[in-house]
Amino acid sequence: MENFCSVHDVKDMDQLIQKALEYKSDPFKHKNIGQGRRIGLIFLNPSLRTRISTQVAALNLGLEPIVFNMGKEGWSLELEDGVVMNGTSVEHIKDAAPVLGQYFDILCLRSFAYLQDRDTDYSEQVLHGFIKYSGLPVISLESATLHPLQSLADMITIKEQWHHKVRPKIVLTWAPHIKALPQAVSNSFAQWVNAWGQADFVITHPEGFELKETFSKGASITYNQQEALANADVVYVKNWSSYLDYGQVKTNADDWMLTPTQWEITNKAKVMHCLPVRRNLELSDAILDSTQNWVTQQVGNRVWAAQAVISEILNQS
Amino acid sequence: MENFCSVHDVKDMDQLIQKALEYKSDPFKHKNIGQGRRIGLIFLNPSLRTRISTQVAALNLGLEPIVFNMGKEGWSLELEDGVVMNGTSVEHIKDAAPVLGQYFDILCLRSFAYLQDRDTDYSEQVLHGFIKYSGLPVISLESATLHPLQSLADMITIKEQWHHKVRPKIVLTWAPHIKALPQAVSNSFAQWVNAWGQADFVITHPEGFELKETFSKGASITYNQQEALANADVVYVKNWSSYLDYGQVKTNADDWMLTPTQWEITNKAKVMHCLPVRRNLELSDAILDSTQNWVTQQVGNRVWAAQAVISEILNQS
Amino acid sequence: MENFCSVHDVKDMDQLIQKALEYKSDPFKHKNIGQGRRIGLIFLNPSLRTRISTQVAALNLGLEPIVFNMGKEGWSLELEDGVVMNGTSVEHIKDAAPVLGQYFDILCLRSFAYLQDRDTDYSEQVLHGFIKYSGLPVISLESATLHPLQSLADMITIKEQWHHKVRPKIVLTWAPHIKALPQAVSNSFAQWVNAWGQADFVITHPEGFELKETFSKGASITYNQQEALANADVVYVKNWSSYLDYGQVKTNADDWMLTPTQWEITNKAKVMHCLPVRRNLELSDAILDSTQNWVTQQVGNRVWAAQAVISEILNQS
Repeated sequence: MENFCSVHDVKDMDQLIQKALEYKSDPFKHKNIGQGRRIGLIFLNPSLRTRISTQVAALNLGLEPIVFNMGKEGWSLELEDGVVMNGTSVEHIKDAAPVLGQYFDILCLRSFAYLQDRDTDYSEQVLHGFIKYSGLPVISLESATLHPLQSLADMITIKEQWHHKVRPKIVLTWAPHIKALPQAVSNSFAQWVNAWGQADFVITHPEGFELKETFSKGASITYNQQEALANADVVYVKNWSSYLDYGQVKTNADDWMLTPTQWEITNKAKVMHCLPVRRNLELSDAILDSTQNWVTQQVGNRVWAAQAVISEILNQS
Repeated sequence: MENFCSVHDVKDMDQLIQKALEYKSDPFKHKNIGQGRRIGLIFLNPSLRTRISTQVAALNLGLEPIVFNMGKEGWSLELEDGVVMNGTSVEHIKDAAPVLGQYFDILCLRSFAYLQDRDTDYSEQVLHGFIKYSGLPVISLESATLHPLQSLADMITIKEQWHHKVRPKIVLTWAPHIKALPQAVSNSFAQWVNAWGQADFVITHPEGFELKETFSKGASITYNQQEALANADVVYVKNWSSYLDYGQVKTNADDWMLTPTQWEITNKAKVMHCLPVRRNLELSDAILDSTQNWVTQQVGNRVWAAQAVISEILNQS
Repeated sequence: MENFCSVHDVKDMDQLIQKALEYKSDPFKHKNIGQGRRIGLIFLNPSLRTRISTQVAALNLGLEPIVFNMGKEGWSLELEDGVVMNGTSVEHIKDAAPVLGQYFDILCLRSFAYLQDRDTDYSEQVLHGFIKYSGLPVISLESATLHPLQSLADMITIKEQWHHKVRPKIVLTWAPHIKALPQAVSNSFAQWVNAWGQADFVITHPEGFELKETFSKGASITYNQQEALANADVVYVKNWSSYLDYGQVKTNADDWMLTPTQWEITNKAKVMHCLPVRRNLELSDAILDSTQNWVTQQVGNRVWAAQAVISEILNQS
């Protein structure tokens, strides 16, 4: 594996999941393979779960993680070529990325969606700039449009928990929220479930909240949440702001919250959420406080996802 | 030791102090007992001394400390049950704490007093929430009402420095300050000296600045600083805002500053302060610049206090 | 080496450069000499290159680096003696520095120029306060007036890259910028090249932008950039605000930017810059995107500079 920025960087998903589960049962089995190597974790916006899980994963492999959090105002990088830099940008990505290339062996990068201009966000220019100019293997710690470590942890959780011989029916359902959130987790989950190909996959959301087809293609899509939830085995709950009317938040959507009433329609589905979750807005207490969810398993599996990916990249480099 | 949040978590104070002093003389005697374990240091408000001393203590035991500083605005955790989270809280403590439980073996938490509502602060709901929901042993790095690692370092200092056979007279004296400070250090010092029981303990402060009786009970309390200082062997200087008129600051209290004049009344007392100290407001230069204080010893002993506590918790878990 | 705050702390520059180059070819040759020792990296203002390169250097020697970033507002230290601290300063340097002295074996400090009062900045009171009161060997990670680790990396780069038998002609040229930058990098480069004494050294800048003579003495100084650049072998490009009219920025100075036209005058000079660089304001794309610069080499050599210095200090202590 050269980089890890989307499902397309994965040659064999089942094998990668298997590797992660081996680390879960024996975290220190490769405790020296990263010795003397440095992994940089650069956060252009803040992160808790992703930061700590990746740090623990790196340590498990003997790598020394160095975390760098940009301030609230961020690191104002210039991305355009040929600009006269007499404004607010203090450094061009062409110059900043090679610096990290001098200090690290692997670069992990958290960038983010501004949710203002769709083309800008979907061009992933920050992530691609670091890949192009750092000269290092790059692991995405969530980018503007995708969150592959989350999705790998999600797939690990499904593989680990689903013991039936039949294909599960997996539903990704939109949920209400008061803030404009990126589409990254949802795009990515859709991309991974589609690539996995071992489930009946349905996406449900209000009209106007279609995900980009690149990611959703392969799933059945419906505006009717009830229909989607019928006989579902796994329900992934997540809010996202509009891709079509870019960054718009839907108000008066309380009926999209997953409550026990809606859960009754499912096949005693296990509920997933990547956290942080707004209780009683996205998902009701009754579900989060029950054993009907895999939320804690997902969080825990973030470590093994990151460890498997870092290990693959170390093998390559 | 399961948790370390107050003196009540300590079975044998003398033994714990002894353990700390052994680490002081041989910091690396147990340099591998924490190997492969992770200790999370979560700061809901900033800290310098506590952070670095705990980090060093963890490293001395072979533990890998991972520090997480919340921003200035903090991590707006929801603490109430059943709330519809459509406001500013981004995550419920019920969901946030188990995340840390997945990544760490020991959790160290710095929370703080808002000094607005006394019941809220004294309920210690953040600290208790993390204990309840993380599933980990929790070490307080100062909470809203107590600062047990500071107090343990203070007791280590007293035990280490007081070589006389007689019981020392220890005085905790209020000092002036311009800002509203929590009662945590003072509550905690009072709690520990009372639990130790090997001193004559006097607390002195202006009227209206009584500490909560739960902590002060066992000490003689007087509004007359002169009387308190007479023949004192050890004087602990600390400001705190009012517990009774919650969070109020006392103005025009310059005469409460500890100066050489007031020190003359004592039995050549050693002066203690947990730092940071406002010079010539709480304590005069003449005392801080002399050998009449144990301030540096207290700071240094923060490492051994933390190391003894982490070691006890590792033995338990 | 007791401290590393300017070229005057270096006994033998050539030997120090040699040591750095040995680490470059074998980073882990002394991987245990720092074992069990702690190096504190305290940043009173933010840093990326300096922080990461020093961290990596410390890890290469087996030292455990502990990074402490002060907030945007900084750590408001009181520096004056005898002050009644009833204002915004929360801690006196006399009390703060010994705290770090208790926790670390080596202290690395980044302080900075306020660019408001020249005497204050040039007194280096923060740096000197930490040296005086911490009781530790101190490594400057850039101070108000000097940046010796940068200069050492610059000298390593020149020694490593300059293979001709003749003395190089080195030119330090002022460049335009929109913000008031400190003189630290320029002062320091001038100080090191002068101390090295193996080059023909010219400094060029607009009238009124003279560096302090203490640092520039030994160089030829001219306001005529063309004249300076003629036959130059190495051109160091850097903006600085005025020392004479302290902190003033020069506007309408576009003609001072180093472009291919100006570069044509040189002897195919190699161009140096410490980064971050404002493209097409200080230096044109054409030079930065060519192989005519040593910018990446300089950045990479920051690690070996720091490693050589830490190693020297460990040998001493």
